[in-house]
Amino acid sequence: MTDIHDLVAELGDDVVVTDPQRTEKYRHDRAGDTGAGTPLAVVRARSTGDVQAAVRFAAAHDVPVIPRGAGSGLSGGAAAVTDCLVVCTERMREVRVDPVTQTAVVQPGLMNAEVKAAAAEHGLWYPPDPSSYEFCSIGGNIATNAGGLCCVKYGVTTDYVMGLTVVLADGTAVELGGPRIKDVAGLSLTKLFVGSEGTLGIVTEIVLRLVPAQRPPATLVATFATLDDATDTVLAITRQMRPSMLEFMDRPTINAVEDMTRMGLDREAAAMLVIQSDEPAGHAAAECATIASLCEEHRATEVFSTDDPDEGEAFVVARRQAIPAVERTGTLLLEDVGVPLPQLGALVDGIEEIARAREVTIAVVAHAGDGNTHPLIVFDPADEDMAARAQRAYGEVMELAMRLGGTITGEHGVGRLKQPWVGAYLGPDALALNHRIKDALDPQGILNPGAGL
Amino acid sequence: MTDIHDLVAELGDDVVVTDPQRTEKYRHDRAGDTGAGTPLAVVRARSTGDVQAAVRFAAAHDVPVIPRGAGSGLSGGAAAVTDCLVVCTERMREVRVDPVTQTAVVQPGLMNAEVKAAAAEHGLWYPPDPSSYEFCSIGGNIATNAGGLCCVKYGVTTDYVMGLTVVLADGTAVELGGPRIKDVAGLSLTKLFVGSEGTLGIVTEIVLRLVPAQRPPATLVATFATLDDATDTVLAITRQMRPSMLEFMDRPTINAVEDMTRMGLDREAAAMLVIQSDEPAGHAAAECATIASLCEEHRATEVFSTDDPDEGEAFVVARRQAIPAVERTGTLLLEDVGVPLPQLGALVDGIEEIARAREVTIAVVAHAGDGNTHPLIVFDPADEDMAARAQRAYGEVMELAMRLGGTITGEHGVGRLKQPWVGAYLGPDALALNHRIKDALDPQGILNPGAGL
Repeated sequence: MTDIHDLVAELGDDVVVTDPQRTEKYRHDRAGDTGAGTPLAVVRARSTGDVQAAVRFAAAHDVPVIPRGAGSGLSGGAAAVTDCLVVCTERMREVRVDPVTQTAVVQPGLMNAEVKAAAAEHGLWYPPDPSSYEFCSIGGNIATNAGGLCCVKYGVTTDYVMGLTVVLADGTAVELGGPRIKDVAGLSLTKLFVGSEGTLGIVTEIVLRLVPAQRPPATLVATFATLDDATDTVLAITRQMRPSMLEFMDRPTINAVEDMTRMGLDREAAAMLVIQSDEPAGHAAAECATIASLCEEHRATEVFSTDDPDEGEAFVVARRQAIPAVERTGTLLLEDVGVPLPQLGALVDGIEEIARAREVTIAVVAHAGDGNTHPLIVFDPADEDMAARAQRAYGEVMELAMRLGGTITGEHGVGRLKQPWVGAYLGPDALALNHRIKDALDPQGILNPGAGL
Repeated sequence: MTDIHDLVAELGDDVVVTDPQRTEKYRHDRAGDTGAGTPLAVVRARSTGDVQAAVRFAAAHDVPVIPRGAGSGLSGGAAAVTDCLVVCTERMREVRVDPVTQTAVVQPGLMNAEVKAAAAEHGLWYPPDPSSYEFCSIGGNIATNAGGLCCVKYGVTTDYVMGLTVVLADGTAVELGGPRIKDVAGLSLTKLFVGSEGTLGIVTEIVLRLVPAQRPPATLVATFATLDDATDTVLAITRQMRPSMLEFMDRPTINAVEDMTRMGLDREAAAMLVIQSDEPAGHAAAECATIASLCEEHRATEVFSTDDPDEGEAFVVARRQAIPAVERTGTLLLEDVGVPLPQLGALVDGIEEIARAREVTIAVVAHAGDGNTHPLIVFDPADEDMAARAQRAYGEVMELAMRLGGTITGEHGVGRLKQPWVGAYLGPDALALNHRIKDALDPQGILNPGAGL
C-alpha cells in the first residue's frame, strides 16, 4: 500500500485530500460514473510545483495519475481509476492579458468563459467556444483540443495555443513555445500536447493567442421539412462562404429545447439551422441574404433573419441548451462523430436508422459546417434491455461514421468511453505510432491510463 | 561499402541516380554548399512506394536519408551528408482539389504557387505564401512549417494541414488525419510532423484546407526617417487591427531593391512599411485610412495608398525581391530570427549595432506584423576575415533574439546552419523531450541526421 501520507506531509492536507467524502465528486466527469474507481487522493494543485510534487510521488510509487480540469468532459477522460492520484487544476486560476502582443498567459483552472472575459476587457477575443464554455476549463480545452460553434470560421483550440508549460511523467516541468507568433525551432511539441488528453503530461500554464473582438453577428434561422433539405443547404452554403456559425438541430432536439424554453420553435420541422455571419456591417446582411436564398432554394419551410445581436443570441442560446434540454428526457450517451461534409446527410440519415433499429431516441445536434455531430442517445438506465440497446447504438454510430470516412470524435476526445474504438479508427500503423510516442514520454504508463490511446 | 545496385535494380536507374555529375545539383540547398557531402545516390521518387523502398534500403544498410523538396531551403536542411541517400520528391506532382469540402490532396513536389493556382481554379485560396512561393515545394513548406507575408492574418502552413501520408524510418507508410475539419482521435501527429524538417519521416501526400478566395487588397506604403518610428508604427497598428500584410524593409534593403528595380523608392528612408488590408471594399479603405493616420502620428516621411491591386502588387513584388536584390551585392548569410512584437525595435536596433561592430552590411527585411525578421548578412567569401566576421554576426543575431525572448528561426527551420544554437534556444529539458521523440520514431537516427534537432 502506497503511503499517501508522505505526499500529504509534503503539500499539506488542504492540497492532498484523502477523505472519501471529499474525493467523491472528483471520481468521474460529465460522462457519468461508468465504472470509475476510487482515488487514493485528490491533489488540488495550487501551482506547477504542486503538480510536479504529485507526479514525482506517483512515479516513485507507480501510481496512476488522472489529470482533471473542471470535470466537464463528455468522454470519461477524467474518470478516476482505483488507487490513482487525481491531479486537479481547479485552483490554478491566474490570467494575464497583454494587449500589445494580443496574447494571454493563463493557468488551466480558469473557465473558458473567464478567458473570454479577460480578453474582452482589452477589446480582444479568444474564439473557441464549446457549448459548455461557462463551466469547462481552459486546461480541459487544451487536453481535448476543444471545438465549439465559431470553429467553422475561426478554428479550434490548437489554433490559439502558442505555448505551454507541461509537467512530464517524471515530474519535470518543461516550457514549450511562447508568445512568438512564428517559431519553428525544434519539433512542434506544443501542438503535440494539445489534444493529448493528459496522456503525455499535465498542462500547468498556457500562452494563448487572442484576436480583435468579433463584430456583432447577424443571425439567420431556417427550418426544413426533411433532413436532406437541411443537410443539402449546409453543403450549398459551405461551398461558397464561411459563415461564423452553422449549427443544426433535428426534430427531437428542437422539441426538447422547446419543452424547456417555450420560445416558439417549430415542433414539426425535421431540422433547423442556426447560422451567423460576422462580416462587417452591410456585408453580413449581404451574406445572410445569400444564405436565405440558398435555404429557400432547398425548400426551407421558414427563414427568419435578424441583425439584432440580442435577438440572434436567443437562438444561439437555444442551440447551446440542446444537450441539457435533451438530458431532461433521460440519461444520455453523448456522441461526437464527424464526417467530411458531403457525408453529413448520409450520417444523419444513418443515425435515424440506427435509432429506429435499436428502439431508442437519438437527438442530433451538430456543428454542421464542420461536419461534426452530437447524436444524443437517450435511454432509461433502469431498463437494462434499453441500456444495452443504447450501448449498441453508441458503437454503431461510430462505426457508421468510420464507414463514411469520418472520425469517432470531433472535439470531445476519446477518453475512456471511446477507447475501445480508437484502434479501429486509427488503424494499426497510426495506433502503433501513437503508442511509440506515449511509451517514449511515459514509459511507466502512469499518465491517464486507459484514456485516449 | 553499401551495394546501391540492389536499390537501382529494384527501382530502376531512372529513379536511383548514382552518376556524380547528375547528383551534384542535389548536394545542397539555397543555403549554399556549406560542407555538404556527396550522396551515394539520389532517389527521384515517383510515389510513396518508391520512398518506402528507398527508406527500407537505407534502414537495412544504416544509410542516412536526406529528404529533399525543391532545394529552396535557407537553413541547409536538405544538404547532403557523405554516402547518404537523397530522397527527392520533385517528381511527385499530383493535385486534386475538392471544392465541396474545400480541401486539396497534393503530392509534395508541387510548388506552393502551383497549389495556389489549382485552388484558384475553383475560386479557392491556399494562403501560406513564402517569398519563394514560385520555387519552393509544398513538401518543403510542410517540412519547415513555412510562413510568409499573409501569415500575420492567415496563419502559417500547419494551420492548413489536415492530413499527411508519411513514410517512417522503417519504411512503413502511415496515414495521419484527413479531410475532417475537426478530429481529436489519437495524438495530434499530423501537427507533430509539420515542421519536423524530415527528421521523423518523409511526407508523401498532404491534405490541405483551402479557404474562399482572398478579396483584392488595398495597399499602403510608408517611409520613415528612423527605425524606431517604423517599429513603433508596427506596434501601433497590430495592437488595434490585423492587416493582411505588414512588411518592413530597412535602408540597405530599400537601396538594393531600388538598384534592381528602379521603381523610385526613397533611398534616404531609414525604413519602409508595406501594408495591405483585404477587408471588404469600403472597410479596407477605412482600415487603410486608420493605418495612414497611425503612420503620420509616428512621423512617416511619406505615405502612399492605393486600392488598385496591380499598383499595390508592385510594392509587394519589390518586397519579395528583397532577398535576390541584396544577394546581388554579395554572398548572404540569411537570418530568420523572431521576437515578441514589443521587442521588434530593440531587435532591429541591436542588429544595426552588430553590423557596425562586425563591419558587415546587414540588410533587414521583416514580416514585421509577426515580429519575424530576415537580417541578410552580406559578405565576400574571398575575404576570409570578413567571412569570419559575418559568421560571428550570424551567431550574435541569434543570441540577441534569444536575449529579447525571441526565436532563432521563425519560418525557415533549424536545418544544419542553426543546429548549433537549437540547444541553447530550447533549453535542456525541451531539447531532451525533442530527442526522446526523435529516438522513439527513428531509433537508428537515419533520417536527416545533423539537421533540426
